[in-house]
Amino acid sequence: MASSNALPIVLLAEQFAKLPGIGMKTAQRLAYFVTSMPEDEVVAFSEALLNARRNIKLCSVCQNLTDREVCPVCEDNSRDKSIICVVEGPKDVTAIERTGEYKGSYHVLHGLISPIDGVTPDKLKIKELIARIQADSSIKEVIMATNPTVEGDATAMYISRLLKPVGIKVTRLAFGLPVGGILEYADEVTLFRALENRNEI
Amino acid sequence: MASSNALPIVLLAEQFAKLPGIGMKTAQRLAYFVTSMPEDEVVAFSEALLNARRNIKLCSVCQNLTDREVCPVCEDNSRDKSIICVVEGPKDVTAIERTGEYKGSYHVLHGLISPIDGVTPDKLKIKELIARIQADSSIKEVIMATNPTVEGDATAMYISRLLKPVGIKVTRLAFGLPVGGILEYADEVTLFRALENRNEI
Repeated sequence: MASSNALPIVLLAEQFAKLPGIGMKTAQRLAYFVTSMPEDEVVAFSEALLNARRNIKLCSVCQNLTDREVCPVCEDNSRDKSIICVVEGPKDVTAIERTGEYKGSYHVLHGLISPIDGVTPDKLKIKELIARIQADSSIKEVIMATNPTVEGDATAMYISRLLKPVGIKVTRLAFGLPVGGILEYADEVTLFRALENRNEI
Repeated sequence: MASSNALPIVLLAEQFAKLPGIGMKTAQRLAYFVTSMPEDEVVAFSEALLNARRNIKLCSVCQNLTDREVCPVCEDNSRDKSIICVVEGPKDVTAIERTGEYKGSYHVLHGLISPIDGVTPDKLKIKELIARIQADSSIKEVIMATNPTVEGDATAMYISRLLKPVGIKVTRLAFGLPVGGILEYADEVTLFRALENRNEI
């Protein structure tokens, strides 16, 4: 860094540059922006950073990120606890919640099985899922809502095999054409899956 | 926000979303990333934010952002104080310092004259520039290094007119083809300026 740079700005830019998808140029721009923000907003930002890191734990039931012992979804009695939707990460819970249609509970794996990246099943929250199902006989269905990728499919397959002997219904999200998508531009695997899973109208 | 979201993460995402160029999706991604960072790094980030905002002031000489009374460039006796390079903002100082070629001093205007945006000359650090030149008879040249835009040209013109009576040499950055650029793709104004400012080889 050039000697003319004010030290605190350079330090802040370096912190921003540690975040994913933020390069040094953007980090500098953000750091300059912070110096022009009202001081109370910067204080709020600074506290939000610490709070998000310090007050975050995993829900003891579904393993989603939360600031309490049990997350709001698991605590909500109006939700159907007999269905568990298994997802890769907390962002997927947010995405499914956004549809407003799903009224069951969740289980967050915090990753997908990927031996090439060193992610073996024991590194995911799979044992917590099994323990949860074994402890609660009211659970009827497990929906595998992992991504339609090699890792997502493998993880779904692995968990479904573990759950078969327990006698639980395991389902997978439907794959097909995205709504509003154009058939001509769909990739062949998606199109094949859409054909395979065709429904009577 | 969905009720399933842990509160501290949502709050942090909202803070990130206040930054320029960061939308809600990116802000959420960054907030989730922060929860997975080592705690000491988050503490460092949080402190860097506060320090950048609180310990930043304007150099009493050149008006650049700094954490001291006089910035390192103005304090550096090896720099040529008889030349002042006038720029729009602190980022421009960083850019020029990066060339490693310029050994004079700077003056940061903190904006460009733009009546349409309500930026009149009195809102910029122009009076500080004039006072600086009047107080120091050793200053020989002022380089106008504002952007080659309408506002940049207007600001350069305005300041050069103010300085003419003082008998100071006022220069402007050269405009022409960018090094490594392709003539065919240069816009007509740049090409015209490159022709106009042609040099003997």
